[in-house]
Amino acid sequence: MKNIIKLATVSVAAAMLSTVAHADSLIENVNGITLDKNGEVVRFTAMVIDDEGRVKELLDRKDKRPADLDFQYDGEGKTLIPGFVDAHGHVMGMGFAALTLDLSGTRSLEEALQRVRDYAERYPNRQWLIGNGWNQESWGLGRFPTAAELDSVVPDRPVFLSRVDGHAVWVNSRAMEAAGIDAKTQAPAGGAIERKNGQPTGIFVDLAERLFDQAIPQPRPVERDLALMKAQEILLANGVTAIADMGTTMEDWQSFRRAGDKGQLKVRIISYAAEIDNMIAIGGPGPSPWLYDDRLRLAGVKLYVDGALGSRGALLKKPYADQSGHSGLALLTSAQLKNKMSRAAMDGFQTAIHAIGDQANAETLSAIEEMQSSYRGDRRWRIEHAQIVDPADLPRFAQTGTIASMQPVHQTSDRLMAEVRLGPNRLDGAYAWKSILDSGAKVAFGTDVPVESVNPFPGLAVAMTREDENGEPFGGWLPRERVTRIEAWRAYTLDAAYAGFAEDRIGSLEPGKRADFVIVADDLLLSSPADIRKFRVEQTWIAGRPVYRSE
Amino acid sequence: MKNIIKLATVSVAAAMLSTVAHADSLIENVNGITLDKNGEVVRFTAMVIDDEGRVKELLDRKDKRPADLDFQYDGEGKTLIPGFVDAHGHVMGMGFAALTLDLSGTRSLEEALQRVRDYAERYPNRQWLIGNGWNQESWGLGRFPTAAELDSVVPDRPVFLSRVDGHAVWVNSRAMEAAGIDAKTQAPAGGAIERKNGQPTGIFVDLAERLFDQAIPQPRPVERDLALMKAQEILLANGVTAIADMGTTMEDWQSFRRAGDKGQLKVRIISYAAEIDNMIAIGGPGPSPWLYDDRLRLAGVKLYVDGALGSRGALLKKPYADQSGHSGLALLTSAQLKNKMSRAAMDGFQTAIHAIGDQANAETLSAIEEMQSSYRGDRRWRIEHAQIVDPADLPRFAQTGTIASMQPVHQTSDRLMAEVRLGPNRLDGAYAWKSILDSGAKVAFGTDVPVESVNPFPGLAVAMTREDENGEPFGGWLPRERVTRIEAWRAYTLDAAYAGFAEDRIGSLEPGKRADFVIVADDLLLSSPADIRKFRVEQTWIAGRPVYRSE
Repeated sequence: MKNIIKLATVSVAAAMLSTVAHADSLIENVNGITLDKNGEVVRFTAMVIDDEGRVKELLDRKDKRPADLDFQYDGEGKTLIPGFVDAHGHVMGMGFAALTLDLSGTRSLEEALQRVRDYAERYPNRQWLIGNGWNQESWGLGRFPTAAELDSVVPDRPVFLSRVDGHAVWVNSRAMEAAGIDAKTQAPAGGAIERKNGQPTGIFVDLAERLFDQAIPQPRPVERDLALMKAQEILLANGVTAIADMGTTMEDWQSFRRAGDKGQLKVRIISYAAEIDNMIAIGGPGPSPWLYDDRLRLAGVKLYVDGALGSRGALLKKPYADQSGHSGLALLTSAQLKNKMSRAAMDGFQTAIHAIGDQANAETLSAIEEMQSSYRGDRRWRIEHAQIVDPADLPRFAQTGTIASMQPVHQTSDRLMAEVRLGPNRLDGAYAWKSILDSGAKVAFGTDVPVESVNPFPGLAVAMTREDENGEPFGGWLPRERVTRIEAWRAYTLDAAYAGFAEDRIGSLEPGKRADFVIVADDLLLSSPADIRKFRVEQTWIAGRPVYRSE
Repeated sequence: MKNIIKLATVSVAAAMLSTVAHADSLIENVNGITLDKNGEVVRFTAMVIDDEGRVKELLDRKDKRPADLDFQYDGEGKTLIPGFVDAHGHVMGMGFAALTLDLSGTRSLEEALQRVRDYAERYPNRQWLIGNGWNQESWGLGRFPTAAELDSVVPDRPVFLSRVDGHAVWVNSRAMEAAGIDAKTQAPAGGAIERKNGQPTGIFVDLAERLFDQAIPQPRPVERDLALMKAQEILLANGVTAIADMGTTMEDWQSFRRAGDKGQLKVRIISYAAEIDNMIAIGGPGPSPWLYDDRLRLAGVKLYVDGALGSRGALLKKPYADQSGHSGLALLTSAQLKNKMSRAAMDGFQTAIHAIGDQANAETLSAIEEMQSSYRGDRRWRIEHAQIVDPADLPRFAQTGTIASMQPVHQTSDRLMAEVRLGPNRLDGAYAWKSILDSGAKVAFGTDVPVESVNPFPGLAVAMTREDENGEPFGGWLPRERVTRIEAWRAYTLDAAYAGFAEDRIGSLEPGKRADFVIVADDLLLSSPADIRKFRVEQTWIAGRPVYRSE
């Protein structure tokens, strides 16, 4: 506007003054360790943080400390490492799981039923009893549980219990009644109903779970907001300062926004919308900007190509070893997958595709190869889980720049089940972290929380050993797929950030990146995997501010 | 945290420096006029604005100017007034209207049909032709138009045209086909289908419009975002710096958020969610905070008690004078209304209730009286339109602290129609601005854009004269309801802000409030109503930054 007179001198003076006005913070006396952007280990004893919560400088013992400080924190010589980035989790699912009936860790059907009974007594006013975390494989049951067994502990109210992997539900008779399900009910495409003499037994697999959608009361936004707060608590207590949310619904997004709007969003959430419709409804013409000082961004879309191995939904090239003629459930045809990927890619959305079986991975890699020719640029195609990959397909990750987003702890949880599902001769590309890395592809690690605990330390230990918490099998399962300590750590930090287009702001402690870090008692690089598994987070800081401290 | 050492001296020094660091701006040499918070006129010649876009000081010619300035603007003696606050509009509807077929201002059915034909030729690829703004009252037709008449200009594609008040649609035969509508189709509750010999004629009133919901392709988010940008352009060109959005859907909200996230939200939007479900889905446990530096807030919910007068949907105490036995359409029972109001009030959401007919206003006032006893505090119940109020009910606005949110230009558009609908003896409480003000209640003015133009100047002129753009009727229609110049201005600024819980930040130019203002050529307080009607906005500024300048 012509009448505006810029008073340049004043502005320059103001700019000079404002540099002086903002003082830094100093984290002093720590055993600091991080990877740099090249994956090299950097050690430091102090860190300067600017007033926007970004790392300004890493200092050695002999380096000069800044003169103007807003505050200083004495780390008492403890180990300071970058906050963990969980490359694959379900934030709201995690919060709800923490607030609902939890059957994880149950060792027998009886123990699970006892927990259901206790929960029902504790919440006499809840219309529906909702729970999750059961795994009949851990019960040595050799079969799915039944509605009749649930009826024996809760005959009067509907009970709806998701399997640990989310790919099957176990319900009681009142739940089936409420949903109007009987012997005549057909499973929708992509789903299956377990039956005995034609009667549903109480187990509904994959898309058959949707038969209950109308009957189950939806959580209200106020309950969603509580779940998000609960999820943040757990993430911070586990040293996870950023997480990729795999399958954000509009309701989830609104909870994220409400928290952000009120300054209550602490953890950084890299969001992948649940399906194309949510992606468009939230993002409109493209991914969102980074919001709330890098605490939220809609990066892309989460799609599902198949189900899970435990519920025999994973799509295999050959039939399941333990169910003849059955090769899993295709949730999308190859043409549908490519249409959806195109729809996302044309507007610059990233795609993260759930593929567990070898056929699902092969089809997804083929689709990515086709997309590559149409959509140029830095696309960072992601395959989520990539659990069973035909060894012949392994090189295709690196060839297409596809990131394998994998969950180390799944390997120990699934090992025995995978052997039964696939038989002994089809395990060569199972949970093949090292092979994928060595082929030149990037691997990002996560937990699939709430399927597994969000604690990253058991994940690091498993990645290095392929042994479970009891040290089984000794020397590791398919031990050639063990990765090095640095590879494991990198996949949980730097490359998990890269997988979410966030490596310029989080994933390591380097000047210009956010000062998100965790304080633990011992040195991560000098501890044994068994000790790392037992690491406890003492403090978690985000953007240079403390957000969690253990009791 | 115990180890944090606050370095108090440094912080204080930093705070002192930062005060110096932020320089102010000066708007100089203006004929500044505003109301203060008591409604008194204040004149000034210069305004100091702080670096957050807030008014810091109003200065007289003799007052000392600040020394440290970031920039200075010379107003060349022109008049500077606060930005207008439109208390009732439809932001997205306004944007879409500007991008779709516009039949407003047509003087005959032939002219309207010609415009439809031209539009169809201009957009040969649009599947549906969507338009609005028609008003058979302005055509001297004495009846509604018909599908057959539309077929004569567009036989090959569906055409769907909303009446100027949004309370009826006019469609062609292809549109009815596409929606599967024939002689057997029944109108839903709250709606009506015009028929001749049992066949639908092409006019669908109020909720009967929803029969087309499934058939009409929904705009995509990218089109919504374009509509929002268009709406902002029009608002700023008319000097409207804030608007209450009456009926925000989740899709609308996402557009507002995307614009805000990208720094493209200029106008301030006070949002009232469309119905309780959107209110809860967006707001969750309560109204949102002010977002984007006071540019967006979800304040409450918009509810509808009845329809509009033109389409005989307004709910009257006695039957319409021109349709015996028909008293309008109740869109909610009294019990439903109170349930919804309770649902909003319990979580602190404000309610803005569309009530046009005298019966609708009486029922809404009764509901508010009942709410008052349960929900204490500063509630600011709003009745939107309050067009026809039984004189006996007028004092109930002030008694309950209810704000009458009214649209002056509706009075001139509706005058002849209202006389026909109500007859000569039931007009005592029609568009009764002055009576409501004198009873002690607050009146907020708006335009109901896109029903009327968002230009506030004709509204000011109408409010002062009750004459239309041609000076009819001379001396004003029911002239005792004319308001003073200051009352009209206040209802378009200070009290429109008050109606949206925003009077602490906008609505007048006072220290601490946002520097939202408009520059016009002449003095608003010294110009005749006829001249004010012709005022053109030369510049619009929001938060101390120029956002519009006329060519």
